Parts: sequence; C-alpha cells; structure tokens
Amino acid sequence: MVKIYAFVNSHFKVFNLSEDNIDDIPSKDELIWVDMFSPSSDEFRFLEKYYEIEFPTKQETEEIEISSRYWESDKDITINSYFLVVDGDAGHNETVTFILQDNFLVTIRYRELKTFGECLRKMIANPSSFKDGSYIMSSIFEARIDLDADILESLSRNVSNLRKKLFANDIADEDILESIYHYENLNTNIRDSLIDKQRIISSLLKSRKLSDVIKDNFRIMIKDVNSLIDFTRYNFDRLDYIQNIFLGLLNIEQNKVIKIFTVVNVIFLPPTLVASVYGMNFEFFPEIHWRYGYLFAWVLMVASAILPVYIFKKKGWL
Amino acid sequence: MVKIYAFVNSHFKVFNLSEDNIDDIPSKDELIWVDMFSPSSDEFRFLEKYYEIEFPTKQETEEIEISSRYWESDKDITINSYFLVVDGDAGHNETVTFILQDNFLVTIRYRELKTFGECLRKMIANPSSFKDGSYIMSSIFEARIDLDADILESLSRNVSNLRKKLFANDIADEDILESIYHYENLNTNIRDSLIDKQRIISSLLKSRKLSDVIKDNFRIMIKDVNSLIDFTRYNFDRLDYIQNIFLGLLNIEQNKVIKIFTVVNVIFLPPTLVASVYGMNFEFFPEIHWRYGYLFAWVLMVASAILPVYIFKKKGWL
Amino acid sequence: MVKIYAFVNSHFKVFNLSEDNIDDIPSKDELIWVDMFSPSSDEFRFLEKYYEIEFPTKQETEEIEISSRYWESDKDITINSYFLVVDGDAGHNETVTFILQDNFLVTIRYRELKTFGECLRKMIANPSSFKDGSYIMSSIFEARIDLDADILESLSRNVSNLRKKLFANDIADEDILESIYHYENLNTNIRDSLIDKQRIISSLLKSRKLSDVIKDNFRIMIKDVNSLIDFTRYNFDRLDYIQNIFLGLLNIEQNKVIKIFTVVNVIFLPPTLVASVYGMNFEFFPEIHWRYGYLFAWVLMVASAILPVYIFKKKGWL
Amino acid sequence: MVKIYAFVNSHFKVFNLSEDNIDDIPSKDELIWVDMFSPSSDEFRFLEKYYEIEFPTKQETEEIEISSRYWESDKDITINSYFLVVDGDAGHNETVTFILQDNFLVTIRYRELKTFGECLRKMIANPSSFKDGSYIMSSIFEARIDLDADILESLSRNVSNLRKKLFANDIADEDILESIYHYENLNTNIRDSLIDKQRIISSLLKSRKLSDVIKDNFRIMIKDVNSLIDFTRYNFDRLDYIQNIFLGLLNIEQNKVIKIFTVVNVIFLPPTLVASVYGMNFEFFPEIHWRYGYLFAWVLMVASAILPVYIFKKKGWL
Amino acid sequence: MVKIYAFVNSHFKVFNLSEDNIDDIPSKDELIWVDMFSPSSDEFRFLEKYYEIEFPTKQETEEIEISSRYWESDKDITINSYFLVVDGDAGHNETVTFILQDNFLVTIRYRELKTFGECLRKMIANPSSFKDGSYIMSSIFEARIDLDADILESLSRNVSNLRKKLFANDIADEDILESIYHYENLNTNIRDSLIDKQRIISSLLKSRKLSDVIKDNFRIMIKDVNSLIDFTRYNFDRLDYIQNIFLGLLNIEQNKVIKIFTVVNVIFLPPTLVASVYGMNFEFFPEIHWRYGYLFAWVLMVASAILPVYIFKKKGWL
Repeated sequence: MVKIYAFVNSHFKVFNLSEDNIDDIPSKDELIWVDMFSPSSDEFRFLEKYYEIEFPTKQETEEIEISSRYWESDKDITINSYFLVVDGDAGHNETVTFILQDNFLVTIRYRELKTFGECLRKMIANPSSFKDGSYIMSSIFEARIDLDADILESLSRNVSNLRKKLFANDIADEDILESIYHYENLNTNIRDSLIDKQRIISSLLKSRKLSDVIKDNFRIMIKDVNSLIDFTRYNFDRLDYIQNIFLGLLNIEQNKVIKIFTVVNVIFLPPTLVASVYGMNFEFFPEIHWRYGYLFAWVLMVASAILPVYIFKKKGWL
Repeated sequence: MVKIYAFVNSHFKVFNLSEDNIDDIPSKDELIWVDMFSPSSDEFRFLEKYYEIEFPTKQETEEIEISSRYWESDKDITINSYFLVVDGDAGHNETVTFILQDNFLVTIRYRELKTFGECLRKMIANPSSFKDGSYIMSSIFEARIDLDADILESLSRNVSNLRKKLFANDIADEDILESIYHYENLNTNIRDSLIDKQRIISSLLKSRKLSDVIKDNFRIMIKDVNSLIDFTRYNFDRLDYIQNIFLGLLNIEQNKVIKIFTVVNVIFLPPTLVASVYGMNFEFFPEIHWRYGYLFAWVLMVASAILPVYIFKKKGWL
Repeated sequence: MVKIYAFVNSHFKVFNLSEDNIDDIPSKDELIWVDMFSPSSDEFRFLEKYYEIEFPTKQETEEIEISSRYWESDKDITINSYFLVVDGDAGHNETVTFILQDNFLVTIRYRELKTFGECLRKMIANPSSFKDGSYIMSSIFEARIDLDADILESLSRNVSNLRKKLFANDIADEDILESIYHYENLNTNIRDSLIDKQRIISSLLKSRKLSDVIKDNFRIMIKDVNSLIDFTRYNFDRLDYIQNIFLGLLNIEQNKVIKIFTVVNVIFLPPTLVASVYGMNFEFFPEIHWRYGYLFAWVLMVASAILPVYIFKKKGWL
Repeated sequence: MVKIYAFVNSHFKVFNLSEDNIDDIPSKDELIWVDMFSPSSDEFRFLEKYYEIEFPTKQETEEIEISSRYWESDKDITINSYFLVVDGDAGHNETVTFILQDNFLVTIRYRELKTFGECLRKMIANPSSFKDGSYIMSSIFEARIDLDADILESLSRNVSNLRKKLFANDIADEDILESIYHYENLNTNIRDSLIDKQRIISSLLKSRKLSDVIKDNFRIMIKDVNSLIDFTRYNFDRLDYIQNIFLGLLNIEQNKVIKIFTVVNVIFLPPTLVASVYGMNFEFFPEIHWRYGYLFAWVLMVASAILPVYIFKKKGWL
Repeated sequence: MVKIYAFVNSHFKVFNLSEDNIDDIPSKDELIWVDMFSPSSDEFRFLEKYYEIEFPTKQETEEIEISSRYWESDKDITINSYFLVVDGDAGHNETVTFILQDNFLVTIRYRELKTFGECLRKMIANPSSFKDGSYIMSSIFEARIDLDADILESLSRNVSNLRKKLFANDIADEDILESIYHYENLNTNIRDSLIDKQRIISSLLKSRKLSDVIKDNFRIMIKDVNSLIDFTRYNFDRLDYIQNIFLGLLNIEQNKVIKIFTVVNVIFLPPTLVASVYGMNFEFFPEIHWRYGYLFAWVLMVASAILPVYIFKKKGWL
C-alpha cells in the first residue's frame, strides 16, 4: 500500500496509489512524502521509474553497520533506522527505511507504526510547518523518540514495582528471575534503538543537505536521545541491583538452614558421647552397677543436649 | 473554587469567582491567571464559554504518555505535570494542569499546593516581573523545583542518618528494611516528578510560543533539574549500598553462629572416639582390666576435647 | 563585635564599632562591609536603624529550605550559607548570613572563620579590586570553596591511607570501622556544604542585582563546586569500597575457621567408625579373638584418619 | 606497493608506483595522497628523495608515548595511530602512520584496511570534497571511528547474549569464563584504540596547520570518540556484572550442596544416639530384656530420623 | 645550577650562571626563563637581588593548601605544582615552583625532569612561539600533562594484564594483592598530581595577568586534565573490581573445601550408625547369632555409605 502526500496550493493532498488512479498521481514537484507500507515489487518498480527514486536492496536494509544505516550520495540520503515494536514480550527492532531526496521523503515499512499516525495528525493540525520532506522526517523521529521515552518510563515503573515486590517478599523466586530477564531484554532493545538514533542523527548533523532549522531540531533531539541512553543505564543498574539483592537474599536463606542444622547437630553430640561412655567395657566401672545408673545416664544425656544451647543463647551467640 | 488574577492599570486584581459577582469578572484582555482549585463542572463550563478555554478531558489528564502531558496546538499549550505531595509516607504525584493561552495561564488542581502560595507571594512582592501568564508558569515551576530540591536534601539527610544507625548497630533489622523501603519509594516518586519536569521543559524549549527571556529561565531550570536527577541517583546508590552492607552484616552474623557450632562440634568428636575405642570387644584388651582404666579414659576424653582447640588457638586459626 | 569597612578616598578605613566612637561611624555611602561577629542585640538594633538593614530573624536563619537560604527582595539579597567548621571530629556546618544591599555587604557569624581573614588579606593587598560589597562576598565564597577543596583533599588522603592500612593488615577491625564512620560523616558534611553553595550560586546567577563581572566569577565557582561535589562522590565510593572489602575479608576469615574445623571433623569420623565396628556384638567375629586385634584396630584407626586428608591434599582439594 | 593519488584538472589520477613508470610520477604540487602499503626500503628511499618526505624510523613508530604518536614540526605533522584489526580472536592494534605535509597526505601501513577502501569509495563518489590531504586524513579517521563503533555494537550484542545464556543456564561454566575473557580483551583493545584517537585528535585541534573546516569535523569526531569510550565503559560494566553474577550463582550452587548434606547429616545423628544408648552396659537396663526390645529400638531410630526434618519442614525452616 | 634563557635579537641565548661569568648575565628585559636546578642559597640570594625576584620560603613550598600552591600578587604569580616522579615503585610527587613575573618565568626544582628537556627541545625547534615566560610555563604544563597521560596508559595496560593473569589463574595470591596495592598507590599519586594541576589551571584562568592565547591553551589543557582524572577513576574501578573478583574466587575456593568435607562427613555417618546398631546389647537380637552376621554388617555398612551419595549424584544435587 502506498500513500502519496503532495502539497498543492498550500494544501495537503493525499493520494492512495492503485491501478485505477495511476493517472492522477501527483507530479514530482508537488511531492512531499511517499509512505510505502508493505509495498509490492510492482509498486517499487513503478515508483523507482516514475519519481526516479533509488531504493536500497533488501540486503542493504538488513546490514547493521553504520555505513549501511546511513548513506549519503550526491542525490539523496538513505537511512535505515530501528523502530522498536513492543509486541507482548520484550519487543523487537523493526527496520524502517527513509530516503530523503530533493524536497520529498520516502518511507518504507512493513508494519503499522503509531509514530507515523502521530506525525500525520500534526501535519493536518499545522500544515504550514511541514514545508518539505525533511520536516516530516524530523517530526517522525521526534515522535519516535517521545515514544521510546514513554516505553522507558513505563519499564522503569515496572522495575520499581519489581523491587518493591522483592522487598515485600511478595513474589515467587522464578517470577523475579523471569521478570528481570524480560525487562533486561526490553531495556537492551530500547538501548539498541536509541544508540541507532544517536548515530544517525550525528551523521545527519554532519550533512550539508539539511537546513539549519531542521539541524537545530536534531540538535535538541540528540540531547534527548543522550539523556534517554543515560536512562537505560539507570534501568540496567536497577535491574543488576535487584538481581544482586535477590542472590544475597537466597544466600542468606540457605545459610539460615545451614545454621539451624549446624546447631541441631551439636544438640545430638553430647548425649551420644554420654551413651558411648556408658558403652565402654571397663571392668572397674562403678556407674554400671548402680541401681539408677540407667536413669542417671538419661538425665546426663538430656542435660548435655540442652546445656550448650542454653549457654550460647545466654551469651548471645545464637 | 476559582480565583482570577487580572492586571489592570499596572496593578493586580484578584477576583473570586462566585454566582454573585459574575458580572464583575475581568475581561479576557486583562486576564493573566485563572487558578482553578477543585473546580465544579459548572465552573468548567462557564470558563470554557466565557474565556474560550479548551479544557482537556479527565481521561487525557490521567494519561502518562508525553504526548498527553505536553500538547501544543495553534491556540494554546496544555501541560499535565506531576507535583509531588509528601503526605506522611512516601508521598504521591498529583497531576496539575497548565493551559497557556494568549497572555494568560490557566491552572487546574485538586489540592492545596505550597508552590502556588509562594508564587503568589512573589507576584505581590514584585508585580512588575509578572507581565503575562508565561511568567507565572515559569515562577510556579521554579518554586516547584526548589521544593523538590528541599525534599531531596531532607531525604538525603535521612539516608545518611540511617547509614549512621546501621553503623552504630543502633536500629532493629526490620526498621532498617522498612526505612530503606520507604526512602526508596519517596526517591522514586521525586525522580518520576523530575523526569516529568525535564521532558516538559525540554518540550517548552522547542516551542515558538515562549519569549526568549522565559526560555532563558527554563534553560537554567533544566540544568537544575538535571543536577537534581543526578541527586536522586546518588540517593539510590546510598540506599543500595546500605542494603548491601546490611545483607553483608547479616551474612557475617549467621556465619559467626555456624563458626561457633562447627568448633563446638569438633570438641565432642575426640572424646566420642575415645569412648568408642573402649567400647570395643577385643579379648586381648589391656586397658579394660586396669584398676584406673575408667579414670584414664576420662582423662583422655577431656584432654582430647581441649587439645585441638588449644592448638588451633595457638596457631591463630581461631 | 562589629567591624565596619568603608572606602574613603580610594582607601580602606576599618572602624570597630563601640559605644565610644559611635559618632565617627562611616556614612552609608562609603560603606562596603559590615562584619558582625557574635553581635549583641543592641548592635543589631543600632545597625538596623542606622543603616536601614533588614535582618532575618534567628528562626529564619535556621530554616534549611532554599527559600529561607536565599531570599531576594526589591531592596536586598539575603543568604544563609553553610560554612563547614572542622573541630576535632567530623566537623559541623555553621550558618553564616550574608545581606547584600545597595553597594555594601553585611555578614553575621558566631565563629572565628579563616576565610574571612583570608579575604581581608586580599583586600589589603589589592584594594582596587574590591569596589563594592558584591566583590567582597564573591571573594569570601571563593576562599571558602578553596578551603572546602583543601579539606576534601586532606580527607581523600586519609581515606587512601586507610585503604593502605587495611591492605597491609596494619589496623584493628574496630579502628577501621570507626575511621570509615568518621570519614563518612565528614564527607557528608562537606557535601551538604557544597550542595548548599551550588544552590545559592545558582540563585545568584539568576538575580539581576549582580554585575556581569561578578557573575562570571560565580560561573567559574559553580564549575569548581560541581567538580568538588564529584570529588565527594569519589570519596564515598572509596569508603564504600573499603567497607565492602572489609566485610569480604571478615567473611573469608570466618570461612577459614569453618573450613579448618570441617576438615578436622572428618579426621575423627573414620576412626570412630572403626571403633564402633569392633564394638559390635556378633558371635562370629574373627578379629576379636586375634592376639593383636586391638593393635590392628589402632593401626586401622590411625590410617583411616590420615588417609582421606592425604588423598584430598594430593588431589589438590585442600 | 605505493599508490599515488594526484588531483589534475579537477580529476583524480591514480598512479601505481613501479620501476617501469617512474617517469610519469605526479609532481609534488598535484599530489594529494601517497598510500604506502608494505613499502620496500627502495620505495621509502625514492619517495624520501623525490617528494622530500621525512619518514619516522621504525623504532619511532613503535613507541607508545604520545610525544611519539603525534609530532608536529615546522614542516609536517607525523601521526602514529592505532587501527584495531579484528582477526579471529580479540584482535590487536596495528600502527598506521600518517604524515601531513604541505597539501598532501602520506600513509604507511602493513595490512589491508577496510577504512582505506571506504575512504577511496567516497573520494570517487564525491571528488570535489577532497581538496587536499587533510580532507583525506579526516575521512579515514571518520571511517575508522565508524568502524570502531560497529565493532563495539557487535561486541555489546554478544555480551547481551552471554548474559541471556547465563540467565537461561544455557552454557557451560568454562564457556562463560572464556567468553568473558575474550570480550574483555576485545573491549580493552577497542578502548586503547579510542583513547589513542582521542589524544591524537585533541593534539590536532591545538595545531595551527589545519583549516577551520577540518577542525570542525574533528570536533564532531572527538565527541563521537568520547561517547564511544563511554560505550566501552558500559561494556566493561556489563562484563564485570556478568562475572559477578556468575560467581554469585556458583557460590549458591555450592551452598546448596552444603545445605543438603548438613541436613542429611542431622538425619543420621538421632538414630546413632538411640543405637549408642542401647549399647550401654548398665546392669539394670529394662529394655534390653524386653521380647521386642530390638524392634522397639528400630522404631525409635526411624522415628528419631524422620521427626526433626518433619518438624523443620512444618516450621518452614527447610 | 642555574640556567638563564634570554631572547636577544630574536635568538635564544643560554647562560650558565657561575662565578666566572657573572658580568655577562642577561639583563632583566631580555630574560624569558630562569631555570634553577637544586640552587644554592648563594644563587637564591644573587637572583633575588639582581632580578628582584621574591622567592617563597621552603616552608611555603611544602604547604599543601591551594592558597599556598597558587599565590597571585600585584607583582607576580607563584605556583607550587606536583610533578610525579616514577622511581621504581609507586612514585612520589615532587614539588616544582614556578614564578611568573613581568615577561619571564622562574622555575625551581631539585630533580632532573624529562618535561623540562622536552620543553627546551620545542623552544629550540620553534623559537618564535616562545615570546615570553608564560609560553614556556604553558609548554612545560602541556608536556607534563602528556607525560601523566603516558604513565596512566601504561598503568592501565598493567592493570589489564593483572586482570588477565587472575583470569588465567596464572599468578600467586600474594602477587595479586601486592600488584593491586602497588597500582593503587601509583594511581592515587597520579590523581593527586592531576587534581593539583586542575586547581592550578583553574586559578590561572581567573587571573588577569595571562593573555587570551595562553588562556585558550590552558582551557584545552584543563579539559585534558579532566578526562585524565576520569581515567584514574576508571583505573580505580578496574582495580577494585579485580580485588572483588579475587575475594570472590578465594571464597569459592574455601567453600569448595567445605563442600567436599561436608559430603565426606555424610559418607561415614550411615556405616557408623550400622556399627552402633550391632553394638546394641539386646538379649533378643537375631543377627548377632547368624553365621554370616558380621559379613552382613559389612555389606550393610558399605552400601549405606555409597547409597546416599549415589542418590544425590543421580538427583543432580552434587
């Protein structure tokens, strides 16, 4: 599906490309945005020819080196940027392609993206601020960075809650580990997407194709991106800390059991010694022949079991 | 309750909106501040009509995404900002709504707020510095950030004291944990409120509705906010550290008990061995037939119990 | 005691206020500094009237909120700032009050302060650089920040030495803990005093009462203060680390004892088993009837005690 | 192999130096880049004479002090910079020499380097942006920093995966340690190479030989380098953390075994006590003579083994 | 030994002060540098008189407060700066005195210093860049900061290697501790020397005696110093981390021994129980009278020793 936005007589015109209306397609001069959503190869070929756009190959889109993520030629700037999609679990980074050529922007994506809708809303509300494609691109990036910030804040809130639950002992051990794992992955994905944006914007700032107004916007954006990257670090620190505390608590739990059984161990040793003593085979052995020798042995055993623990408790060692 | 502040002949005029005086209400031109405190729906409807203010819906106010916390249209800027209210425990963040339209400011809140009083004090002391609504908004934010700083410093002082108490062993284990829990929550709330301010001010700085003077104020404010966010990080670090030390001390306490009982364990083993030896049934067994064999066994048992501990003490292993 | 410094015919004049010379008191125009050291209430009243100074109440001086620590009116700027006094132990923060009014400065303090002497020295050495009260205030703050830096460096040197001592095992356990406690408190006090200065200077930079030259000085100072706050963080990190290592070493010391006694434990078990075996009452029991059965048992017992330890040593498990 | 790039009539001319074509060699004026790849000593001597280039000695190239890595004379700037080569394992830093003299650049290297190819690609795509040698040097450094960033990101992704594997218990202990070791070394090498670039660029910025345009490029580059150095720190932190968690898990694993065996230990003690009791030799000993005494003893033994564990389980101590 | 450098007819002239040539001594106007190396008191007195230099007393030189390390009067600037001398072990900080007066520099030192030689080399290579004493001082500081950076990098490399050795278990425990101790001290000394430079340069930047060109140099230097101080922190972090890991490994080593012996302990308990059982004295005791009772007991004992360990191994608890 391809939507083409043109600027005719200071009004936006939206054009849904289909076989039926191919003759009414806006001219290259009026063009400001070609938004390609899961385009077919026919659509690719048609636009390539009609508007003389050079599309990157699929392979180039999937490369992860900066030289494949930002490429500037005499004719255009091609950008492959990560857009984090939060779907159920830890989300994943979708690649969205931007081509900035003359005064229009081409975007290629294979997913419904909230940020595109938001940009459109702003375009409709304030058409005069979107003079050419670079303004649209700037607006999409801005919306995207805001969305990343929202995701980060929500993640940070979840991490805080996890900490509280661990504190209140209000959560099973496996759930803690699973949550840490899940949040770590999400945080890593956000960080990847932000580092990607940081590098792309840094490259855009070096370009001579963008106007100073747009560059000023990007300069503020890169500051926002930097403070968000700081924010992901804060999240990592908190998660690391939670896992650390969790291991610490587990260790103390284990040691508690060891402690109790070490104490119990000592309770049985003295009576065993007593019993062993009266199992000796000496010929001359007075207690053996006593009338209440056996009873005496029992008293001794019980006393020897209780006494040490009693003493240690008194001394505050227990 | 709605208070309306107007600027008439270079003097402030305060106007308490009620059904009786509705005819004396200041005109839209003179208006600089409409302060709505727990407004009724009647008051909403009246102001909406009379001054042509567009209020956000209740639902929009409660959204936590930045696009709902800062919204700029051709007509106005709408801001939903967190104001931390410290009530007994860890406090919570109240949402206060600001609408900046033409030359006046509208604020909507459902709580008595210290910062509003302070701003009013400054307005009375120095009326000439409050030319329009943006100055009032800037002043409220400034007072709010100062208040956050005060709360942070007081929290930091409490954390220091907690550390001292832990050090001096002057506090029960549960109280430490409860205090950490409490301070962590308060610190999280302050941080949330500051991050909120950081993002709102960053958006305000991009707006073209504010004058350069006001923007300069906000630029200094955002630096203050950043250093306060750093401060919350310092508090988190200190709290994490206290909990770490606390777990470490607990662990050492447990190990001390284990150590003592492991030592005691070893005291009983040698005499038990001796007793077992003299319980053997060999036919040829000289000691059994000795006159003082039993006594000899006792001497052996006591000696074997004391000797190892004595040796280890000498060797400095204990 | 009140000393009044005036600037008459491009020369400083010092005036010690007393009942005798009250008629020679400098006029308000010539005044550049009123230094009040533990002033009596009479002196307060006299100066309040004579120079029309508005003094803050004692209660206002002791408030710790920024709004009470920095207060700017149309007439003057009132500042209550912490000055760290290192007296024997961890020191404490004294409040010193500055009132900047017209072209003169009023300072109120209840302690001999090194920084005031140093400022005076500089005034005498270079009178032309102290045109009005703001220059004196700037100079006192500068000297104070330098002094804080000196205290911090000396503390940092002590912390390094503590670390070395812990390393060389050259210090008793309690002394380590006491030193950490002491240094932590001192560091906290320095930090409080620096945060206080940071906030006051930040407020001064927003004021319109100060000249650009003075503001440039304060701008350099706030950078110095920021790097000193960083320095306190470094000290905290080092102290935390020392305590961490200390707990770690303590834990290893305890575990060493547990280890030794666990090993000793195992030495006694095999001979006890042997002895128990020969204490069995079987009718058909060949060893019992042997001539050297008892001797044989002893050999077995000794061998069984030594063998396992020998094997483990060989396997490198010990 | 020596390739000489000249700029003749606003076109690039590439010249492969060999014995055959030595007469067609570009003049010194047209020269912009002499790229020496594993040059022979003959080639060194020829170029030294023909273009009056002063080559550093081999020894000077290998020094690691900054004064040997950046040297500026009246005539030229000589730079020895690290280029990280990732070959199989943790990679190593190759030294590449740059000599910037008049309007041309000389590079000496002993390895095929990707960044040189990329720079060439850009030169061909956009010849007009490479007016003299300093532009080529700036372009090579830029490509190199981008490559370092790519390596860092890929390393960071590997570290994240290692963390996930540790979490999912999906990897052998030795593999974890080996991976940490490997990644640490790679990260250290990247860091060394970035610190090297930071210092070289900082020296270049102080030089008066470079134009402002080139310096602006280097100023953006040094910011990128700084944020990449930050990135290496992030990687170190993550790796440290993984090793920490790994040690923590190992410790808990060990303690689990100790716990289980401590518990088992206690199971055997009570029945041993019972058996010892009925091994006593008292004359008056009723149970001994019972018909079912032996059976009774067995019941007692089993019960005494089970009971404590049962009680502890109920009390939640196990 | 005193060397005097003068600038006569745009050429440097070096003058070695001795009794013989005292008449040819350069005049004060031509003077740019007086380099005093372990000067005698005679030399001090002569120069004090001849060039009207005010030397600080020995005591003033050794003070460590900033007010004694940087002192500016109407006539001159006196600086006492730390120069780290790496001699065998952790090095120590030598104090070097700089006096900047009119257009010449006086330096006092008691050691051969590499940085002075390097500065001289630059002066000879490029005399026109050293117009007066401030340029020489700037050049010495620059060389010194470069040297500090070299020492830091070399230390950082050693720390990395230590980490690798710990990892590869390729070093004795005491050597690790000794190396950490040694590196910590060196790092502390570098840090002290850098903090010293940071404060001195910060004071120089506030002075009105220096030209803007020189100040620009110092501004770049202070940035370098700041990033080097960051670098020392990185080294501390790495060293702390190594010690942490070292303690962790030691702990695990100890626990391994405890674990093994706890397991061994449990091996001996069941056979001891069996033996104790057959040592009971019941009248009615069938096994006692069996022909192969003793053999049966042995089978039982061996089985009871092996079985639990076998079961635990199967259950994966071991």
